[in-house]
Amino acid sequence: MASIEVKNIYILGAGGSIGLQTLDILKHNKDFNLVGLSLSSNDHINEAILSVFKPEIASLRYENQISKYQSKYPDIKWVLGDEGLLEVARYHKPGLLINALSGSSGLMPTVEAIKAGKDIGLANKETLVMAGPIIKDLVIKHGVMLLPIDSEHFALWELLRQVENRDNIKKIAITASGGALRHLSRRDLVNVTKEDALKHPNWEMGPKITIDSATMVNKGLEIIEANHLFGFDYYDIETLLHDESLVHAIVYLKDGTKLMNISKNDMKIPIRKVLYFPYQIEDEPITNISKLTLKPMDEIRYPMISLAYEVGKIGGILPTIYNAANEAAVDLFLKDKITFKEIESIIIRYTLSSDNIKNPTLEDIIRVDKEIKQAIYNYYLGE
Amino acid sequence: MASIEVKNIYILGAGGSIGLQTLDILKHNKDFNLVGLSLSSNDHINEAILSVFKPEIASLRYENQISKYQSKYPDIKWVLGDEGLLEVARYHKPGLLINALSGSSGLMPTVEAIKAGKDIGLANKETLVMAGPIIKDLVIKHGVMLLPIDSEHFALWELLRQVENRDNIKKIAITASGGALRHLSRRDLVNVTKEDALKHPNWEMGPKITIDSATMVNKGLEIIEANHLFGFDYYDIETLLHDESLVHAIVYLKDGTKLMNISKNDMKIPIRKVLYFPYQIEDEPITNISKLTLKPMDEIRYPMISLAYEVGKIGGILPTIYNAANEAAVDLFLKDKITFKEIESIIIRYTLSSDNIKNPTLEDIIRVDKEIKQAIYNYYLGE
Repeated sequence: MASIEVKNIYILGAGGSIGLQTLDILKHNKDFNLVGLSLSSNDHINEAILSVFKPEIASLRYENQISKYQSKYPDIKWVLGDEGLLEVARYHKPGLLINALSGSSGLMPTVEAIKAGKDIGLANKETLVMAGPIIKDLVIKHGVMLLPIDSEHFALWELLRQVENRDNIKKIAITASGGALRHLSRRDLVNVTKEDALKHPNWEMGPKITIDSATMVNKGLEIIEANHLFGFDYYDIETLLHDESLVHAIVYLKDGTKLMNISKNDMKIPIRKVLYFPYQIEDEPITNISKLTLKPMDEIRYPMISLAYEVGKIGGILPTIYNAANEAAVDLFLKDKITFKEIESIIIRYTLSSDNIKNPTLEDIIRVDKEIKQAIYNYYLGE
Repeated sequence: MASIEVKNIYILGAGGSIGLQTLDILKHNKDFNLVGLSLSSNDHINEAILSVFKPEIASLRYENQISKYQSKYPDIKWVLGDEGLLEVARYHKPGLLINALSGSSGLMPTVEAIKAGKDIGLANKETLVMAGPIIKDLVIKHGVMLLPIDSEHFALWELLRQVENRDNIKKIAITASGGALRHLSRRDLVNVTKEDALKHPNWEMGPKITIDSATMVNKGLEIIEANHLFGFDYYDIETLLHDESLVHAIVYLKDGTKLMNISKNDMKIPIRKVLYFPYQIEDEPITNISKLTLKPMDEIRYPMISLAYEVGKIGGILPTIYNAANEAAVDLFLKDKITFKEIESIIIRYTLSSDNIKNPTLEDIIRVDKEIKQAIYNYYLGE
């Protein structure tokens, strides 16, 4: 790898799970130059990052953080909050921006980075769920690459590049572990605590996505993301339950052939491959497996899946509402304001009762995202 | 593993691929005691074995070998030829006999070993193809274990032990690499040389089984073996083409779940597990894979598959004829007496033109096996 040009890298959400794993790959790696990043609200994590990396521009979450960092690291250009994310995204040097932000706050930085001519490594699935058609138009217009970092979409991307003729494909499938509560029936979900729901069997991730795995909203968002990324009709996107999280995606050809992508449940694999793309790097060994289990999705157990298919098919502003209701509900659950099952009922209620907007603009999307969340917070917190 | 009792081991076909891999596991391994074996016609291989192992009984292939071995290794009881195999199988000490003989010569030693109360590690698929019902009766009667060493059957055996209720199973599948000539159409088979057919893409094996992989007769035998071992109807035994030889078998449950056994294409894995059974040993890592391809069997390309299904369904003496015709034909091909495609036509001709015997005895089976082979040799060699 020594001979490739040094690549400029930006990371939004550097203090989260994907962000830290990306930094771990970049550390002491002369193939890359970390130009900009957004830090977290956790000063310990931020200090650990800044002890290793010297970015040119960095964004902080809260205003009260900025003076301390500015005096300690005067060579860095410090920017702040949502506008700070956009400034990092717009920073003048070309490069690859890894968007590892959690939730709807990831949308506008993706838009700005594309407009600034940056390639995108997209771990923020809300970007495509909320604004798939707009993002795809921007990618074409600005001639940038959009590389998926989600394990399932990365797997699909690897498989689909190996099929010469798209017409030979019958359908695709992505897999789901079922999350922390997969061994419980719907009846047993009544007594689930926050601690129960945060124990994911296969992946170490942040709290939001871990809860999203348990409700299967995460897979719902991925179904919509897969539709936008690869253009498959919703009827041709299958979801499978897969205990071992080793098969990430399957491509079914019309002649009956199945192509299965298999790799360790380690996000560093897609991150590393996206960082080096278009240079190919070796696959890593899978250890200690002897069985793969693939089951049909249980849409009775996981009603958020059927809802995601419906929301995706209808399109317009509905995927934004599905996502916004989920973000507010998970936040309320993590703050002990609602029960686990109320997450689902909130999403169903707001998704089914809201008016659709057929071809929403970015402004519509941002506005409705805020309105839905505010309505939910008002109702449950009396704000 | 240090705490288990030392297990007595016998190996028939010690100089072949499975035999040598078994010896490699036993070497310097205090969990096992090699009591008896059958050596090969190759003195170099035999000497290499005897420089490490000191069995109590050993069988030689040819009479002219015996005096030399007897004077050099006087502490070993030396036995000879087909009868020698039976003497090793009958040797008085209990233990596990690994039958790694190639072809129909493996049948009677299995029978004698079972009658002598030995557990069987069965790599000789002809045993069950020729005399499945008789062998199963003997196993029950003598209370011994019959453990499959073929990678596919071993994989099925591991999967099936994990399914609590057999009624939940819809069907099973075994995979086939397609062998050395898988990239050729039937038309191109006309020009195939012995060297071409002996280049197996995934497995290092002896010449007979490597040719059997290229004709798909090996898979045909395995279909019949799977029927006998696990009791599945032929309609419920699927064969799949699988380039990578990593998924060895699949169990399909009625609820749509698929259980796939996956492991390195390394025969030492099933051999080691069979040697230690019922003690469980760890699975080994699979390296450098990122894709699994599963295709429907192409029965036009591989007519020996459909023939095996038919032969298996009809049963009786037909599987013995299918196997005997193949053994003679492959021998003739390896001696440059016939072309590659003639292997298939010989099997078809003798299988379709012979009278069936519905419930053959062991004597019937041994007699017909000899008669068919003799008829083929007479025809092609004018003997």
